Amino acid sequence: MWHQTEITLSAKSRGFHLVTEEILKQVPEIKNFELGLANLFIQHTSASLTINENADPTVRKDFEASFNQVFAENEPFYKHTLEGSDDMPAHLKSSVLGCSLNIPITNGRLNLGTWQGIYFCEHRNYATARSLIITLNGE
Amino acid sequence: MWHQTEITLSAKSRGFHLVTEEILKQVPEIKNFELGLANLFIQHTSASLTINENADPTVRKDFEASFNQVFAENEPFYKHTLEGSDDMPAHLKSSVLGCSLNIPITNGRLNLGTWQGIYFCEHRNYATARSLIITLNGE
Amino acid sequence: MWHQTEITLSAKSRGFHLVTEEILKQVPEIKNFELGLANLFIQHTSASLTINENADPTVRKDFEASFNQVFAENEPFYKHTLEGSDDMPAHLKSSVLGCSLNIPITNGRLNLGTWQGIYFCEHRNYATARSLIITLNGE
Repeated sequence: MWHQTEITLSAKSRGFHLVTEEILKQVPEIKNFELGLANLFIQHTSASLTINENADPTVRKDFEASFNQVFAENEPFYKHTLEGSDDMPAHLKSSVLGCSLNIPITNGRLNLGTWQGIYFCEHRNYATARSLIITLNGE
Repeated sequence: MWHQTEITLSAKSRGFHLVTEEILKQVPEIKNFELGLANLFIQHTSASLTINENADPTVRKDFEASFNQVFAENEPFYKHTLEGSDDMPAHLKSSVLGCSLNIPITNGRLNLGTWQGIYFCEHRNYATARSLIITLNGE
Repeated sequence: MWHQTEITLSAKSRGFHLVTEEILKQVPEIKNFELGLANLFIQHTSASLTINENADPTVRKDFEASFNQVFAENEPFYKHTLEGSDDMPAHLKSSVLGCSLNIPITNGRLNLGTWQGIYFCEHRNYATARSLIITLNGE
């Protein structure tokens, strides 16, 4: 059994955002799958998806600070600079975190651990809404 | 054809561990799949899964040293510090390496390259057993 | 419906290469899938796959420069050094970017965003052809 749909995440400020509920409410069909896998695919190259701690908001703040340090703006070796100082780091962060998540489905729910939530990571200073393809497969 | 099971990896010291055999012996059902995909999903936010070199143990030591350098403890900008200096770097490393692996199945076996093995990456100083959801899909 | 095949990417220089077309022309069977998922799995531990910007070649140059800075050669703590100074950083980069990509299929095509392309990332100085397992699943 397959279900595929395109959903939209509303525009968000640069940083890491917990979006488990914003995604789930757009894919109620998960409840029809007793067992399977969900693929979440973000169709952009300057934003990303990851799974991390769903409780303390300072974790998301520290993600932003750490990624800004490791993949910094204005590195002297950057050649791709026409779209702003936040653009090339955004591409790097997008590939390091990834654009595609696979999560098991069990008894009609995403089988996340107790502390796991889905992060949407916006790496640009000024972003618009972002498009995701959700693909469910199972029985 | 689907098969899904929850398995446990025994508690391990902080670092990178080759666990291909520990996982495979808990999922003998792989042999029933002529062709398909295996998803390995770790239900935690301070440990991760990756695939890398299965021969020389110094590779795993160097992973630990490099990740400790790039995502260091005690960064002055960390706000999420209550759970110990190893905690926030553990969350970062978990997202950079990922909690979900997809591996092709061919003729009843994981179709890994000659030098590929599955690494379990424990990022906390003191950890307990870790839970994985294994989902097999194929024919 | 399943289709699995092993394909080869020709040997490439160290760096990041846009290979969407080189891959697609080896998997014409994608057109038979109205809806599904494609898994691309590279069977090596010193090369990787990622998705990023498909237009400006300087993005790929900046990826190489940035990854060379963050996961540098000749770190004093490296123990795995017998295969050359590019070897251990290659293993690190491979795990950070990943060896396995999952991309939705919609109406017989990979459902990539407008600016997304598939990057093959060669992390060794002297490489040979690289082997990928492509697994298509859908209806």
